[in-house]
Amino acid sequence: MTSQTVVTLESIKEPIQAELDGAFEELSRIVRSDFSMINDVNTHLLRLKGKLFRPTLALLAARVSGEVGSRETTLAAIVELIHVATLIHDDSVDHSPLRRGQPTINSLFSHQISVIMGDYLYSRAIVELVNLDCSDALKVMSRVTNEMTVGEMRQLQLHDALEFTGADYDLLIHAKTASLMSGACEVGALAGDAPYREELKKYGLLLGMAFQVTDDVLDYTGSEAVTGKPSGLDLREHKITLPLICALPLMSDGERGRVRTLMDDPDPSDAFVEEIVGIVSERGGIKAARERASELAELAHVELAAIPRSEGQNALVDCITYAIERRR
Amino acid sequence: MTSQTVVTLESIKEPIQAELDGAFEELSRIVRSDFSMINDVNTHLLRLKGKLFRPTLALLAARVSGEVGSRETTLAAIVELIHVATLIHDDSVDHSPLRRGQPTINSLFSHQISVIMGDYLYSRAIVELVNLDCSDALKVMSRVTNEMTVGEMRQLQLHDALEFTGADYDLLIHAKTASLMSGACEVGALAGDAPYREELKKYGLLLGMAFQVTDDVLDYTGSEAVTGKPSGLDLREHKITLPLICALPLMSDGERGRVRTLMDDPDPSDAFVEEIVGIVSERGGIKAARERASELAELAHVELAAIPRSEGQNALVDCITYAIERRR
Repeated sequence: MTSQTVVTLESIKEPIQAELDGAFEELSRIVRSDFSMINDVNTHLLRLKGKLFRPTLALLAARVSGEVGSRETTLAAIVELIHVATLIHDDSVDHSPLRRGQPTINSLFSHQISVIMGDYLYSRAIVELVNLDCSDALKVMSRVTNEMTVGEMRQLQLHDALEFTGADYDLLIHAKTASLMSGACEVGALAGDAPYREELKKYGLLLGMAFQVTDDVLDYTGSEAVTGKPSGLDLREHKITLPLICALPLMSDGERGRVRTLMDDPDPSDAFVEEIVGIVSERGGIKAARERASELAELAHVELAAIPRSEGQNALVDCITYAIERRR
Repeated sequence: MTSQTVVTLESIKEPIQAELDGAFEELSRIVRSDFSMINDVNTHLLRLKGKLFRPTLALLAARVSGEVGSRETTLAAIVELIHVATLIHDDSVDHSPLRRGQPTINSLFSHQISVIMGDYLYSRAIVELVNLDCSDALKVMSRVTNEMTVGEMRQLQLHDALEFTGADYDLLIHAKTASLMSGACEVGALAGDAPYREELKKYGLLLGMAFQVTDDVLDYTGSEAVTGKPSGLDLREHKITLPLICALPLMSDGERGRVRTLMDDPDPSDAFVEEIVGIVSERGGIKAARERASELAELAHVELAAIPRSEGQNALVDCITYAIERRR
């Protein structure tokens, strides 16, 4: 990997900060409605803002491919809009009370409003995409959003916890996270003559997988003060992620039995969750998952080799470091 | 209006029955997935089938405009697919246990699966639309689906029951019903050189409004044995529709007070609902709503005048009769 200095999102955004601000303004324009309830929800959403990592990827991909103009800015806004629409439905499906430490739409308004707002934002995104008259971008984003729904369905169907394999996990994180990051890079890569479309598409996919593996590791290792979530939340919600998958084959029968008991416990205690986190860590699950994230990061790095070095290319390299070294 | 003989959906479909069968097959192809849970839900959805009124409109509009080929068949399938996706989210938002007398996805599977399946079907519809490479159809359908979400939001925000005006009602039924019927006619009308695009778009809008007003009248007059729903269901759910809106200004203060009491009652008794249905009827609300449906039907009819008489044009005329004279 690259430098040992800490990479921050702020430094990554530097080469395209003005365009990113433009994309956020564009997002505010797109979601505006003459219907008050929709505006109330939007005001809340725009205040939350988020890290804007996906539009950052789209704009950096555009920067290394050609001119970053108004089409690229709108595409970046659309990518974030689709991300937000997905989060709203995810939170509604999961009945999550918090997102980024703030109340979710389902908890602040209602479950009904979440479903409809997600639909509203997604259909607004499609209207804007259609207006751009760029059939390649439409193809990419419509495929990606469909893949994401399949990913959501996969996650919901995860019942035979201990039967879930590394291959199943790859399919899941591909659909639920990597797909949109790849799409963000690919629509950005359409700038100019799209000289690096395939490379940036693959880069985004590998980066997205590394990002999600890291997310899942942080769930085991992060403290609530840093991540905004209690550690072991996935286990508590019976979500099987890579650290557990890697640790399971190295566990004793007794330990595996404990995992099974936790998966059957609708409301496991903090101590029980902590016990399993400990077992997963001792059996090398966290280390193995981190290695997998590094592997994916290396592969993402290879895809950038074709792109001449520049401020933008360098920021894309830094995105990889950020994806696997972030603490939240 | 036209003939006095009873118009059936079967007779309306006759000129395009083969194409309609093709559209249903196309629909089955589009929704198929390599993911078992999605197929389980789809099998249930395809078994329900429904009346296929919207694809019928699309195919008849295509028939009077030019050749009905594979593009028109796919468009008709997409229109139905978007309709089904909308119904799934509607049922989920309303917590409805039944649809067309059959269990809904939210009751048969789960609320979560309804949200995700609606998203899956809608995003599949967009993928297919993009593949057709017809930017006019994309523009129409993306606008329509966005309008429908605004309609859903309007419906949800209906709290100040007695303040709801006829103009509010028009906006609501335009968005939630007429918009998609208009879109169905407009994408069908793109066949050939799209000679009647504007006429068919307006026809669909007026027909859709007449259709929804009739639906709302049937809620007051229909018996459960015929409609599959108990009469007065909208009142029970505190939905304000045209019969009530028309009757309110002609009610005594005492009667209006009773309506207000019902609107504040979270679970009104059958007798109470029946009482209000009686008042609405006595004060001429049902008659006035029926007259409005006839007015809209006449206006829809006028739009068809530009189209030469043919089997297809005749079936479009019959659709108007069906929309306002059906019993369920």
